[in-house]
Amino acid sequence: MPGKKVSEKTIRRLSHYARCLRRARVDGIPIVTSKHLSERCGISSAAVRKDLAVFGEFGKQGSGYGVSDLLENIERILGTCAPPGVIVIGAGNIGSALLESGLDGTGGYSYSAIFDNDPEIIGKTIAGVTVQPVDELREVISEHGDVIAILAVPPGEGQNAVNNLVSTGCISILSFTLEPLDVPDGVVLRYVEVSTELDILTHSMKCRDLP
Amino acid sequence: MPGKKVSEKTIRRLSHYARCLRRARVDGIPIVTSKHLSERCGISSAAVRKDLAVFGEFGKQGSGYGVSDLLENIERILGTCAPPGVIVIGAGNIGSALLESGLDGTGGYSYSAIFDNDPEIIGKTIAGVTVQPVDELREVISEHGDVIAILAVPPGEGQNAVNNLVSTGCISILSFTLEPLDVPDGVVLRYVEVSTELDILTHSMKCRDLP
Repeated sequence: MPGKKVSEKTIRRLSHYARCLRRARVDGIPIVTSKHLSERCGISSAAVRKDLAVFGEFGKQGSGYGVSDLLENIERILGTCAPPGVIVIGAGNIGSALLESGLDGTGGYSYSAIFDNDPEIIGKTIAGVTVQPVDELREVISEHGDVIAILAVPPGEGQNAVNNLVSTGCISILSFTLEPLDVPDGVVLRYVEVSTELDILTHSMKCRDLP
Repeated sequence: MPGKKVSEKTIRRLSHYARCLRRARVDGIPIVTSKHLSERCGISSAAVRKDLAVFGEFGKQGSGYGVSDLLENIERILGTCAPPGVIVIGAGNIGSALLESGLDGTGGYSYSAIFDNDPEIIGKTIAGVTVQPVDELREVISEHGDVIAILAVPPGEGQNAVNNLVSTGCISILSFTLEPLDVPDGVVLRYVEVSTELDILTHSMKCRDLP
């Protein structure tokens, strides 16, 4: 079902399967079972089998799934056969750490540029990528076409950075900043919120003794 | 409703309100309206009013909500009045960046310890916290009581680190590593998955022109 819009929960599971399959491919494993995927992805066997049944004729129960075929099908559903470039706004601690950690195993994503407005930082090289001035954002985006922008700017600078990105035509943003940000319709903004994750974990700890 | 288990979606919204209210308190604002919370948190006015109606007698429509009272109530629901300590396993790029970025504005969370098993890194100080050998994990956790452990170890080392944490009694883990990890019942494990976020954004980009 290429091109069909799929729920976020399903995308999340497919994303896990894809990472698992890439590892299997690297390890030279040609065929996997739903049990293998279930164990490696921490997703129940029943859910794995249901997903694979829904998303096409990927294999036959009992005989397993061909790793390359299954991965190709999942990547077609995800739309990640030719993944967009990833740029980072802000070359501080988090931005630098992201570049240094890299995107190995993610199926072809890579950091194509990083921007900052601090003259002390511009021109430095982080994991092989040179920090560019924010002024060059428009040029780089028009050169790359579709990109995902990761926002790693200091508190208070998020909305300006978003406005700047949106004005260049960027429609996909992943924010590591903790402020709520506004985007116009048609722009997808997602958050990585350590602070909210901590609240969710704390709440579950406090509730562990409740019935 | 202190102590009652609340859905993750609601926790996420309450966590945003709490951050908003802390900013208001810092700015010396004594009273906020649901419109203010709605605008600052990027959550619809209707949802804000519904939440505040569900979670107690926080204020009267039209006259706004007392910032301190509302924050206190929300923190009681979240269980974050006395937040647990946060420890980090792995003092590489991501672990170091987390400590350097700090947890200001999160209502009292702070990084209380960081661990690594690399003799070259042990003893270094990151944002005022000295890197300790992993061997000292048990001692530190028994000293601190409940903690949330953030996992920022290299690929392939995640499951060992989790097993080690679980054996010390840790029941709350936030993983920045990309491998699926197993935990026994009663341990809550959450993931910050940049790679999955990229897949979700890519999928939404590919689907933008679909009906």
